[in-house]
Amino acid sequence: MTTGSLGFETSVFDKEYITLAGQREGIVRGGRDLFDRLPRAFEGINQIAVIGWGPQGSAQAQNLRDSLAGRVRVVVGLREGSASFDAARAAGFSEADGTLGEMFAVVAASDMVLLLISDAAQAALYERIFAALRPGATLGLSHGFLLGHLDQRGGRFPEGIDVIAVCPKGMGASVRALYLQGVETNGAGINASFAVEQDRSGRAVERALGWSVGLGAPYTFQTTLRSEYLSDLTGERAILLGGVHGIVESLYRRFRDRGMTEVEAYRHSVDCVTGPISSIVSKEGLIGLYRRLDPAEREIFGQAYAAAYPVGLELTHEIYDEVSSGNEIRSVILAGRRLAEFPMGKIDQAAMWRAGEVARRDRDDATLPLDPFTAGVFCGVMMGQIDTFIAKGHPYSEIANESVIEATDSLNPYMHARGVAYMVDNCSTTARLGSRKWAPRFDYLLTQTAYPAVDDGAGALDTALVKRFEDHPIHEVLRICGQLRPSVDIFVQ
Amino acid sequence: MTTGSLGFETSVFDKEYITLAGQREGIVRGGRDLFDRLPRAFEGINQIAVIGWGPQGSAQAQNLRDSLAGRVRVVVGLREGSASFDAARAAGFSEADGTLGEMFAVVAASDMVLLLISDAAQAALYERIFAALRPGATLGLSHGFLLGHLDQRGGRFPEGIDVIAVCPKGMGASVRALYLQGVETNGAGINASFAVEQDRSGRAVERALGWSVGLGAPYTFQTTLRSEYLSDLTGERAILLGGVHGIVESLYRRFRDRGMTEVEAYRHSVDCVTGPISSIVSKEGLIGLYRRLDPAEREIFGQAYAAAYPVGLELTHEIYDEVSSGNEIRSVILAGRRLAEFPMGKIDQAAMWRAGEVARRDRDDATLPLDPFTAGVFCGVMMGQIDTFIAKGHPYSEIANESVIEATDSLNPYMHARGVAYMVDNCSTTARLGSRKWAPRFDYLLTQTAYPAVDDGAGALDTALVKRFEDHPIHEVLRICGQLRPSVDIFVQ
Repeated sequence: MTTGSLGFETSVFDKEYITLAGQREGIVRGGRDLFDRLPRAFEGINQIAVIGWGPQGSAQAQNLRDSLAGRVRVVVGLREGSASFDAARAAGFSEADGTLGEMFAVVAASDMVLLLISDAAQAALYERIFAALRPGATLGLSHGFLLGHLDQRGGRFPEGIDVIAVCPKGMGASVRALYLQGVETNGAGINASFAVEQDRSGRAVERALGWSVGLGAPYTFQTTLRSEYLSDLTGERAILLGGVHGIVESLYRRFRDRGMTEVEAYRHSVDCVTGPISSIVSKEGLIGLYRRLDPAEREIFGQAYAAAYPVGLELTHEIYDEVSSGNEIRSVILAGRRLAEFPMGKIDQAAMWRAGEVARRDRDDATLPLDPFTAGVFCGVMMGQIDTFIAKGHPYSEIANESVIEATDSLNPYMHARGVAYMVDNCSTTARLGSRKWAPRFDYLLTQTAYPAVDDGAGALDTALVKRFEDHPIHEVLRICGQLRPSVDIFVQ
Repeated sequence: MTTGSLGFETSVFDKEYITLAGQREGIVRGGRDLFDRLPRAFEGINQIAVIGWGPQGSAQAQNLRDSLAGRVRVVVGLREGSASFDAARAAGFSEADGTLGEMFAVVAASDMVLLLISDAAQAALYERIFAALRPGATLGLSHGFLLGHLDQRGGRFPEGIDVIAVCPKGMGASVRALYLQGVETNGAGINASFAVEQDRSGRAVERALGWSVGLGAPYTFQTTLRSEYLSDLTGERAILLGGVHGIVESLYRRFRDRGMTEVEAYRHSVDCVTGPISSIVSKEGLIGLYRRLDPAEREIFGQAYAAAYPVGLELTHEIYDEVSSGNEIRSVILAGRRLAEFPMGKIDQAAMWRAGEVARRDRDDATLPLDPFTAGVFCGVMMGQIDTFIAKGHPYSEIANESVIEATDSLNPYMHARGVAYMVDNCSTTARLGSRKWAPRFDYLLTQTAYPAVDDGAGALDTALVKRFEDHPIHEVLRICGQLRPSVDIFVQ
């Protein structure tokens, strides 16, 4: 992790400073009123290529096209024969007007290339992509996996180009959905980080900020590409996906063992996390969730929190080590080679997720329980991730977005609508592999150590941990981040 | 994996050939009648040092001392101030007669040094150990972790010494217990592999064979140090420890969900695997277990087998990739650095293992069920490991011992006596970390994909897989291996 050299200047947008837990960070707010500045931000860029039509590719291509309204051309590039050509055409891109074409031809014809194909495809194709780039082009990434892969291989980005990243802190589906809400509610969107890895043109910062504002990010904060991939890969393996999956599996089983029906257990575990907890934390922060509880509930919350926090802290540290040592990226590459022989099975056939399908059918969000035990476990694991990122020196904007806001504003609402199993089965291969690897670890550690500690009263209530929760600087950070985006309906239909 | 260059000659022992699944392997049988040959095998060696008093160190030091009966001196070397000095003294080693001393002094005074300290200690101390070795000394290892670690670091064994390995295919406790049984039943013991990594003296093979015969190995087969650590680290993460733990957790839950009491569920999962299944497979092989079942039971076995085999195959392939890429060894080193801050919790407090403690108390081994579903799952995962090792080119002796015999003759009887949780909580740090990492993966995959496939009848009975089980060459291999060791009581009190 190296964020020591952060700092940027912009003459196109308005840089502001916010102070998060005593750290000053320069940020740029977004909003539709800034779209007129985009041509200046993209000065020297006649054509932006969006390569790939996955969740990020399709969302970003449409948002940028709509934001730029023809002032800079946005062209989608796809693999020859890709099944996504039809979907891109349906979204208004076409070969006829030159806004849709074969990937390498589009790369060679564009001044700025946003490489939004899967990690496996990036690993397989990056040398050909690099070779196809124009001299002086700008290469854009939406997360740092390729840097991690290059580090492993001892490879480098080509000299003579700009390399930047804009990393929305949410799924592609949310990037598009909240952007569309922005028509009514100016500033609605998914926050993004940006990073400048190489700046040969001297215009890298403006281009990155233009890209982020064009996507509809309520606010954009700075990071490095390495800091981004460390926190991004760790976060999706921990509280954002793997962790939350393991948490709800362990809680569902616990509630079933204590006599709840399948539906009740599902309401108190999965529905509670993806519904009321996420919704309250999104608007009122973790401390707001805590304040909703009465004294008896706070006691239960505290016990669950004190038992779960060490599990979250230990496992997030382990994941972080695995990511930063390169193990996790090597695992993803190795798994990719096995997929032809061993395709990933779906998890949604397991008994719990079938019960969940039934439970979701007649769900009334207004009557979902706010279970204090579930809240304590979820917040404990989440705080374990927050404290890991603080210990590793990440900027607070990255910590808050990668540990809390991405969960409550993007992923959890999606899981609420479709189910956690659906989410795990349908996210990116890198995230899916990570979730399948780490969810069982969270489940086992919670079941083997955290819950017995609560039930024995042996660990009793570690009041020092609860006190640290109450006084944690993250609450003030979340309050400030909350002011930087409008409160919109985050629910997914 | 490179076993292409296997082959050895001995003028001290009697080399025999066995043919396993069409592959000819040279082996050496053991037995107490061969102890008289040990001084010839150790020609040029006046003193053998056993460094460390863990399970392997304490067993091997005592077995060698008893086998050599003073004809070559066996000296135990321990870390200054080690708490194990008392235990070594109680076993008859003493500073007074020069058979016990400080580690580095003992190394420097010995001709042959068996390095049996923990993997973490080997990683931390190997440079000092190498420096303390006499020129021309013989360094002995009991598994290949140090080679894996050197590979990671770009390090090498010192020039000018012999480097050999003798790797008992069982826990230290079994190495000692079965050796003692050998007094009554000549040839009882734990099979071992041997490897010659460096042979500067021209005597490396004889010394390795002498060491193995001195430990009481019924038969000794050849491998390479790299083949050994690939199969050893993979095996303990898969069926030997991590796999069996995940299997019984998933089965216990399944049986509970289907209405069994805690005790019944424990009998049909844990007790069944570590008791009747292991005992039958030890004596009659996997096919003998199958033949015990009546037609209706074979149908159940077949369904469970056909559903579990793909899980075993997929996960053992993944583990093998993680081990051979170096990821797993890096993970162990990284975990070692975290242990001070995050000590490993015990798993024996979880509800299932508490129930098991109660269940074990009034267990009557004569009435334990041979559950055909449990047998099918266990054999399926085990065969997944066997087929992985075959695909990777390991010699059949290594495959049979590392996948089946070590489980049935050493580890499972121990788990039967003390509980699986006790075993996981008390094995080597490397094995323990591996088990905690992989057991949950086996559990999740069985629960998410294998059991739903059985219950839906969707996968129905894959008769081709069951037919392949019936015709598998491993059965003949196990029959031949069975003839190479006497049938002794493997039960642990």
